[in-house]
Amino acid sequence: MIRAGVVGASGLAGGELIRLITQHPELELAFVGGSSSVGRRPAELHPNLRIDFGLTVQPVTEDIADQVDVVFLATPAPASAELAALLADRVPSVIDLSGAFRIRTPELHRRWYPKVDRSTELADRFVYGVPELVRDQLVDAPLISLPGCYATAITLGLAPLTLELGLDLRTVLVDGKSGSSGGGLHLRTADLHPFRNNAITPYSPTGHRHAGEVADFLARAKSGSVGSLTMSAYGVPLVRGLLTSSYVFTDGTVDQRTLQRAYTRFYKGDRFVRVRRHDETLIPVPDPQAVLGSNYCDVTALHDEEGGRIVVLAALDNLVKGAAGQAVQAANIRFGLPEETGLTMQPVLPA
Amino acid sequence: MIRAGVVGASGLAGGELIRLITQHPELELAFVGGSSSVGRRPAELHPNLRIDFGLTVQPVTEDIADQVDVVFLATPAPASAELAALLADRVPSVIDLSGAFRIRTPELHRRWYPKVDRSTELADRFVYGVPELVRDQLVDAPLISLPGCYATAITLGLAPLTLELGLDLRTVLVDGKSGSSGGGLHLRTADLHPFRNNAITPYSPTGHRHAGEVADFLARAKSGSVGSLTMSAYGVPLVRGLLTSSYVFTDGTVDQRTLQRAYTRFYKGDRFVRVRRHDETLIPVPDPQAVLGSNYCDVTALHDEEGGRIVVLAALDNLVKGAAGQAVQAANIRFGLPEETGLTMQPVLPA
Amino acid sequence: MIRAGVVGASGLAGGELIRLITQHPELELAFVGGSSSVGRRPAELHPNLRIDFGLTVQPVTEDIADQVDVVFLATPAPASAELAALLADRVPSVIDLSGAFRIRTPELHRRWYPKVDRSTELADRFVYGVPELVRDQLVDAPLISLPGCYATAITLGLAPLTLELGLDLRTVLVDGKSGSSGGGLHLRTADLHPFRNNAITPYSPTGHRHAGEVADFLARAKSGSVGSLTMSAYGVPLVRGLLTSSYVFTDGTVDQRTLQRAYTRFYKGDRFVRVRRHDETLIPVPDPQAVLGSNYCDVTALHDEEGGRIVVLAALDNLVKGAAGQAVQAANIRFGLPEETGLTMQPVLPA
Amino acid sequence: MIRAGVVGASGLAGGELIRLITQHPELELAFVGGSSSVGRRPAELHPNLRIDFGLTVQPVTEDIADQVDVVFLATPAPASAELAALLADRVPSVIDLSGAFRIRTPELHRRWYPKVDRSTELADRFVYGVPELVRDQLVDAPLISLPGCYATAITLGLAPLTLELGLDLRTVLVDGKSGSSGGGLHLRTADLHPFRNNAITPYSPTGHRHAGEVADFLARAKSGSVGSLTMSAYGVPLVRGLLTSSYVFTDGTVDQRTLQRAYTRFYKGDRFVRVRRHDETLIPVPDPQAVLGSNYCDVTALHDEEGGRIVVLAALDNLVKGAAGQAVQAANIRFGLPEETGLTMQPVLPA
Repeated sequence: MIRAGVVGASGLAGGELIRLITQHPELELAFVGGSSSVGRRPAELHPNLRIDFGLTVQPVTEDIADQVDVVFLATPAPASAELAALLADRVPSVIDLSGAFRIRTPELHRRWYPKVDRSTELADRFVYGVPELVRDQLVDAPLISLPGCYATAITLGLAPLTLELGLDLRTVLVDGKSGSSGGGLHLRTADLHPFRNNAITPYSPTGHRHAGEVADFLARAKSGSVGSLTMSAYGVPLVRGLLTSSYVFTDGTVDQRTLQRAYTRFYKGDRFVRVRRHDETLIPVPDPQAVLGSNYCDVTALHDEEGGRIVVLAALDNLVKGAAGQAVQAANIRFGLPEETGLTMQPVLPA
Repeated sequence: MIRAGVVGASGLAGGELIRLITQHPELELAFVGGSSSVGRRPAELHPNLRIDFGLTVQPVTEDIADQVDVVFLATPAPASAELAALLADRVPSVIDLSGAFRIRTPELHRRWYPKVDRSTELADRFVYGVPELVRDQLVDAPLISLPGCYATAITLGLAPLTLELGLDLRTVLVDGKSGSSGGGLHLRTADLHPFRNNAITPYSPTGHRHAGEVADFLARAKSGSVGSLTMSAYGVPLVRGLLTSSYVFTDGTVDQRTLQRAYTRFYKGDRFVRVRRHDETLIPVPDPQAVLGSNYCDVTALHDEEGGRIVVLAALDNLVKGAAGQAVQAANIRFGLPEETGLTMQPVLPA
Repeated sequence: MIRAGVVGASGLAGGELIRLITQHPELELAFVGGSSSVGRRPAELHPNLRIDFGLTVQPVTEDIADQVDVVFLATPAPASAELAALLADRVPSVIDLSGAFRIRTPELHRRWYPKVDRSTELADRFVYGVPELVRDQLVDAPLISLPGCYATAITLGLAPLTLELGLDLRTVLVDGKSGSSGGGLHLRTADLHPFRNNAITPYSPTGHRHAGEVADFLARAKSGSVGSLTMSAYGVPLVRGLLTSSYVFTDGTVDQRTLQRAYTRFYKGDRFVRVRRHDETLIPVPDPQAVLGSNYCDVTALHDEEGGRIVVLAALDNLVKGAAGQAVQAANIRFGLPEETGLTMQPVLPA
Repeated sequence: MIRAGVVGASGLAGGELIRLITQHPELELAFVGGSSSVGRRPAELHPNLRIDFGLTVQPVTEDIADQVDVVFLATPAPASAELAALLADRVPSVIDLSGAFRIRTPELHRRWYPKVDRSTELADRFVYGVPELVRDQLVDAPLISLPGCYATAITLGLAPLTLELGLDLRTVLVDGKSGSSGGGLHLRTADLHPFRNNAITPYSPTGHRHAGEVADFLARAKSGSVGSLTMSAYGVPLVRGLLTSSYVFTDGTVDQRTLQRAYTRFYKGDRFVRVRRHDETLIPVPDPQAVLGSNYCDVTALHDEEGGRIVVLAALDNLVKGAAGQAVQAANIRFGLPEETGLTMQPVLPA
């Protein structure tokens, strides 16, 4: 068994990590860390998980090196930056779910994460990316930084255009729509149920740092290119799940058939990316309800011939494929397990 | 009292018209028409409205000319086309809420409404437009065609850019998000509660006929221009309300201050358009929850300097300002009443 | 115009009072009071109400006697107790929406409101009750205490059994179900959208003080009696609206026809109580969605012959008929206006 | 591998069975049957399950005896009655999820299922009950009838009172609250999203056949008794999950400590029943959100000393523990597998 530690145990991603580790045949929960809930049992923090792990939340010190083989950091970016510095050379594997080490380019990092101090040396040691695109680099990687929930969907949606078709994407405009669990738990009036139940809330109308992350990553890719990439993000009244719509203008020529083939070919063998065909029934295109609770990302690319654009849709569960599930997926690759180990749960529909 | 008839009485817009007429001091419900619910009382069809109007649903014949001063057609476009032909020269005022007469350009009409036969002569007699923009033409107008719910929001959002600032909008990309009442009542599995409660459904991902309507209208405007206008539309899990995000790329130079001033100036005196400032609290930008049940359309324009674009947001209640409320507003202007007569109800928040 | 003050302006009931006063032809908003939001404009606190009243929130002092004819206290019970003592002999009319003065029997008051100090003398001066049942006492009443939202529904549901039919209700068991606005705005994790969206939460499983209020009131009624009255309350995932199910065991003999006639007769002429018939369509029994945003309370009584019980259902909008609307209704009676003045808005359905 | 057939493949319970079989290490999907969707692949019917099983929906004939070891009937009761008659002596194991064989007493069966013809001989061969209570009888049982979703919750909630404490329950009044998936998929206006989003719908206000099922079962129990058992059922605006509140009046003496101990003792070792303690945090009592997607039933019993009653709460996911999960649990016992095989998924919270 691989001994896993979860830091940030009281948050949504922390709880989801514990849920997935509980269901995982090769991972065992060996440490739960945090600062705000020290001394409490996981079952107290997450009432769905009424299991006695024999553990309580503890502060993180370098001593945890003896207890764990892998530490998942489900902490805010500033805390992750500190914890990673503490643990990087002590624990065999550190997997960070925050934004602290996502953006490689220093100026871009400072632009989007002005409050997150990190050393460039440490940042350079992290492997960043959606597992499907950086799989080889994850094997035995000691330090892994995972994309944000939106960035995962956008990147998986755009990658076949640049990496498979080699297109130059002149303008990409992303409209992201997500549920109320996307932003974590904050005690704000606007996040109370009465003000989210009927809301379509433009919470980041003119920019979102996940767009910076995607642009930074795709700029380093071997083929294709991305010119302008802008993003706006909206909260809609569900809890789990997001959909990204990437509206792409390219000078290259494509048609629907080419798109469909390229996406199918690119994701052939990728168990967690499902290319939708649009001629299917009931839910013909990516829709987060069809991936709820699972590690799937559903994608499709549609050619809007009249509009001269490509519409790329990607849906995922922000707490699974957008956070904890993707982290477990990365850990599986890191430790040489089959990629889907512990992640074979199917989506819960309807819910 | 002005005697009003509502045709399509069993639908959502029909029910909303009856609700608003009930609250209106100068309109009286004199006729309810329809084909599927003949003989039934309005209160049976709309359980919120348990009022005895002394009326039952009747088929529409030319005889209704004696009973009404104005007829609201809350019928599907093909039915509206037929009914308008029947009633145009018999009833003093016909106000159509469908798409039958919205698009003036015949080719564009056929492109988006291939099944709606109408005579071009009749179509040319209709005044079309958001009341705020065609107010003068509505006075005494016998035939009025009202914009679709999305088109109303998009047009009110973009109008200050073209009509006030005179900008040429090179590329406009609209992302529309709406609740489950937007598409009417259809007995389809996908529209049952279990499949809408957690959905973000791309139901028109590569185009929507309301975009054609807006483009056709703005093309005839006196100043500014619109190049490419594309649209994608999504269903989100609320019932009432929509938000349109119009992403605008223009060669003209603007900044946030210019935008804010132009919008405020353009809508000065317009009671039903509220320009948001973005520095307000709790719900700082247009969000349909803040207009629910009312005839308001909230708009704001944000300059995304880094992204080189303008983000225009507009929110409204699709059954009120997007349908029945706007129809009553048009009727008020048509009959010389103060524009807000019977429409002074404030939004119901939270709900 | 009657000059109205609203204290507790930042809360949900306060906002709803401002909404209703805005729509009222005879009330004008003359004062907004509070302690937590001093200096802020109503429109900042309630983004639906973007109206400039020329007022900001002020602390309450005895000086407000010059500014208002009626003060609505939409404050927590302890604050209401203090404010009522301050204003009772200074302002012509004080209408309290809290629980401070609802229960007359001192021991029962202490049992349910142990933290609310009030003088028995002052309490005895308040008229308490649902307007439909204490209408005569409200005329010119200087001090009015309104029932809680649940108590309103339960009382209107049970009154025809005791007051009209003179039944002795041996055992009454109330199961109350309400939306998330029922408990006010509290910054608690359990009230965040993610933890209410899929919840059926037994928040008062073994007792609720509104039951004490109802029992205390009915015990003083002229006919019929109530033996044991117990209550359990649940939160369900909507925002506005509640339904009370009162399961009644009585030794008296009734049948469905008798019940239906008694309810219809008892509420004849009461504009805001709608007796449902159960043979109607679409929404045949009381359901809060059919009263949303309105001052209606829908009631029905069903005879369960096999089970030997009467099932009484009552639905209302907790912020309107359960709070602000009922307060305006009481004020209308108090000042000799037609009872429905300013309250003629019809329910918003669907929403 | 045990070869499983699912009949009624297009329904909600059918889809859930396929989901759970997919996740089960010892069950393999060998047949999918139905009448309305013949020829279609499971993935077309259930867009969450985009898996190629190499199967399409087929009509059920006696030939399926060669293909399956167990058949799950997720069909309406009349179809189940027919299919069971056809398959009872041909297939090693038939597990029926409908109401066809739940009620043993013939008169009671006819009272609640007047349209379901079945032979009493066949009915008597079925083992009926919640697996936790009839476990021994399930081993090698060829014919199994599973309780309804509500009946499962009510029975698990009441069983410790009668079977462990031996109490005579004079009066039991059940108030059931469930999500929109509870009634299956019906193309009715009242089930469309707009009319469920804000609803608290009394759909069975004066009686529910699941109460008959529970009474019939408990009447045959070895200890304790149930006098009057009545039920009312309500739809609330979530999709998955139900809560039953059983209000119990008994002449026996109990206190909270006795109750808590009895429940804990009775369910010791039962993996899928979790006794809540009420002093826990965040979600202290049974709430369906804390069991979503899992096979758990959370129960608690609270002593309302002042009211002289016991309040028993039970929550479960109606499609899992209330249907498909319980069916798999029964199959596990039937075939000698560990009871939790394939059912170890933890609840998805928040969702």
